[in-house]
Amino acid sequence: MKVSPFAPQKQPVLPPIEGVRLASCEAGIRYRGRKDLMLALLSEETVVAGTLTRSGTCSAAVDWCRQQLQHGQARALVVNSGNANAFTGMKGRRAVEITAEQAALAAGCAPHEVMIASTGVIGEALDPDSFTHLLEGLAREAKPEAWQEAAATIMTTDTYAKLATRTVWIDGVEVVINSIAKGSGMIAPDMATMLAFIFTDANIARPVLQALCNEMVPGSFNAITVDSDTSTSDTLLLFATRRANMSPVTDIDDPRLADFRAALSDLMLDLAHQIVRDGEGISKFITVRVTGAEHDAAARTVALSIANSPLVKTAMAGEDPNWGRIVMAVGKSGEKADRDLLSIRFGDIEVARNGEVVPDYREQQGAAYMKNAELELGVDLGIGSGKAIIWTCDLTHDYITINADYRS
Amino acid sequence: MKVSPFAPQKQPVLPPIEGVRLASCEAGIRYRGRKDLMLALLSEETVVAGTLTRSGTCSAAVDWCRQQLQHGQARALVVNSGNANAFTGMKGRRAVEITAEQAALAAGCAPHEVMIASTGVIGEALDPDSFTHLLEGLAREAKPEAWQEAAATIMTTDTYAKLATRTVWIDGVEVVINSIAKGSGMIAPDMATMLAFIFTDANIARPVLQALCNEMVPGSFNAITVDSDTSTSDTLLLFATRRANMSPVTDIDDPRLADFRAALSDLMLDLAHQIVRDGEGISKFITVRVTGAEHDAAARTVALSIANSPLVKTAMAGEDPNWGRIVMAVGKSGEKADRDLLSIRFGDIEVARNGEVVPDYREQQGAAYMKNAELELGVDLGIGSGKAIIWTCDLTHDYITINADYRS
Repeated sequence: MKVSPFAPQKQPVLPPIEGVRLASCEAGIRYRGRKDLMLALLSEETVVAGTLTRSGTCSAAVDWCRQQLQHGQARALVVNSGNANAFTGMKGRRAVEITAEQAALAAGCAPHEVMIASTGVIGEALDPDSFTHLLEGLAREAKPEAWQEAAATIMTTDTYAKLATRTVWIDGVEVVINSIAKGSGMIAPDMATMLAFIFTDANIARPVLQALCNEMVPGSFNAITVDSDTSTSDTLLLFATRRANMSPVTDIDDPRLADFRAALSDLMLDLAHQIVRDGEGISKFITVRVTGAEHDAAARTVALSIANSPLVKTAMAGEDPNWGRIVMAVGKSGEKADRDLLSIRFGDIEVARNGEVVPDYREQQGAAYMKNAELELGVDLGIGSGKAIIWTCDLTHDYITINADYRS
Repeated sequence: MKVSPFAPQKQPVLPPIEGVRLASCEAGIRYRGRKDLMLALLSEETVVAGTLTRSGTCSAAVDWCRQQLQHGQARALVVNSGNANAFTGMKGRRAVEITAEQAALAAGCAPHEVMIASTGVIGEALDPDSFTHLLEGLAREAKPEAWQEAAATIMTTDTYAKLATRTVWIDGVEVVINSIAKGSGMIAPDMATMLAFIFTDANIARPVLQALCNEMVPGSFNAITVDSDTSTSDTLLLFATRRANMSPVTDIDDPRLADFRAALSDLMLDLAHQIVRDGEGISKFITVRVTGAEHDAAARTVALSIANSPLVKTAMAGEDPNWGRIVMAVGKSGEKADRDLLSIRFGDIEVARNGEVVPDYREQQGAAYMKNAELELGVDLGIGSGKAIIWTCDLTHDYITINADYRS
């Protein structure tokens, strides 16, 4: 499969974070000739927050993480690609328990301090014996700088590894935020088939970490969609080793958090965009910006209706400035809209105003705009002040090629 | 564009209906070398009932029909293809008014007795002067047998004309129900880009006709989806000329209506299936059958979530028995589902039971089943007695080809 045209020119080099070591290997769970199992070791006192899929048929690993997030202590993270361990019944639950036990032995911690994520095919049993014997070796080899390898290990249909890093100051102390993520298809809000693991050495109490997570997910990971399909396995985990030499932040409103908050928000958006930019078969990166809705939630529904419409997405793929399909998608959203107040923009080009094409708009302008790799579709409903942004990609022949034969 | 593999081997020949005459011609609204304008003339005392799109950005013609359905008298129907006259503002409204005026002159009736439907590109002005001068000639030429030609005239991306007919007895009198329809893409419940016009000579009062419509649409036209996109122009109109020699039916519970009701229901389902069978790029006709849901509405939501999932649809296109994606679609539906009670069938093959693959299910069985042109996906949620059926098609390269370059 060819690499996404939106792959970053250069991948960031992530610095070490005190208290985090990583290792990866080939377990042969599904793929051959590539790594598919990673282990992250976390120092004592590490806390974890997170957001998990709202899918009603979530995976065994998601169930496990949901349980462990209640206490939020973590010493290890195990991630495999190739098999999602979803819809695998009792066997799936048992596989997660065995993985936690074996990782705990390797890491020298308790099983409930092990976080687990799996991504890949749904409905096939994941045999823990096929890979848990490798965890001890991984624990021995784990190194602070093995980020790139870890990011590559968790890929499935991704065409590039996704990494991001930020360095900020809290209270005069430099802290680092590193992250690896994966995601390419089955991407839609409510957490996509998307795994994202964020690590920091900042000394931030768990409730504050969780509050930051809750604050930032709606505008980043939950504001992207590739194909409207919500995964069984979506997992965002945010680990803080708290090894930075600073007094702990225990209040979400602590003013010392200002820079960290901005950097974390920026990093999450960066990763979320990286996931869309690797959307299966992508040829256009599309920003859908809805304003003038009755309220923000309505704007979001309208933006998602546009972003998920096969007819809008195929028009973009064909570089067809077919704004009529945007009108259609607004109309089908079910949200309050008055056709005669509706305005539409392609980037800065005003296409339609108050329910009618703008007199001096020319099809050639729209057609020329559609040649851009990055497109912005602007819709103003003219009703209220609700607004929302959703990022998505187009729907191409390559999406069909990738998904009509994923498993063979 | 190649003809759908599900095109009927032989199209039905529709008998004349007393009080209905039809004519079509080339107006050159968008297409060249084919007919794109049709007129149906209806005898005095004809009543009309119908169902229209719930789109918030519906077309000018839909607005017009909604208004005329309040009194429900009809003497003419004008349909054009190539231009939907949607999102065309005041000009669009004026175009409809002029069309009604000109058709009224041609038909010798009042403008409010003219029903109008338009299908094609959204957002481009429809110039009434380009075709309304042809209506008088059409009225002169109109013939009782011109059904096939009328059905072909209203096509857009359809690959075959859609016709259906039934003959039934009411109270010892033979009555006919004829119908033409179009639809291929932008097909989703809440009425698809779907036009369907049904004509009968049965003497049925308007309120009864409307009640029959309301009763039968949910299980037929509103139970199909091609691409989840709801059109601005969906229109179903049901005309009764009441010329049959029978005493009028004025009560929906009139027992004389039994056969007519069954035939009309059967005809609507036939047409709805014909539309899906011409779904853009179709290679598989898919029945999604959900049982065991909390209630019928929940079953419908789950069935639509499966039928509209790009990952389910592409798996079917690739003949991949990827039932994990069905699990995903159940999970994302937002309806109550218990992973551990969920069962899945491919036709008669039991694939998963109580949240796990069935021990003796073999991938080869599923793969062999997927070779069929017509597939049934069965899901039992194991929770309640709610059930629903949705008909859809797969998502193929041809869908992308058709829609990435619709307008050029």
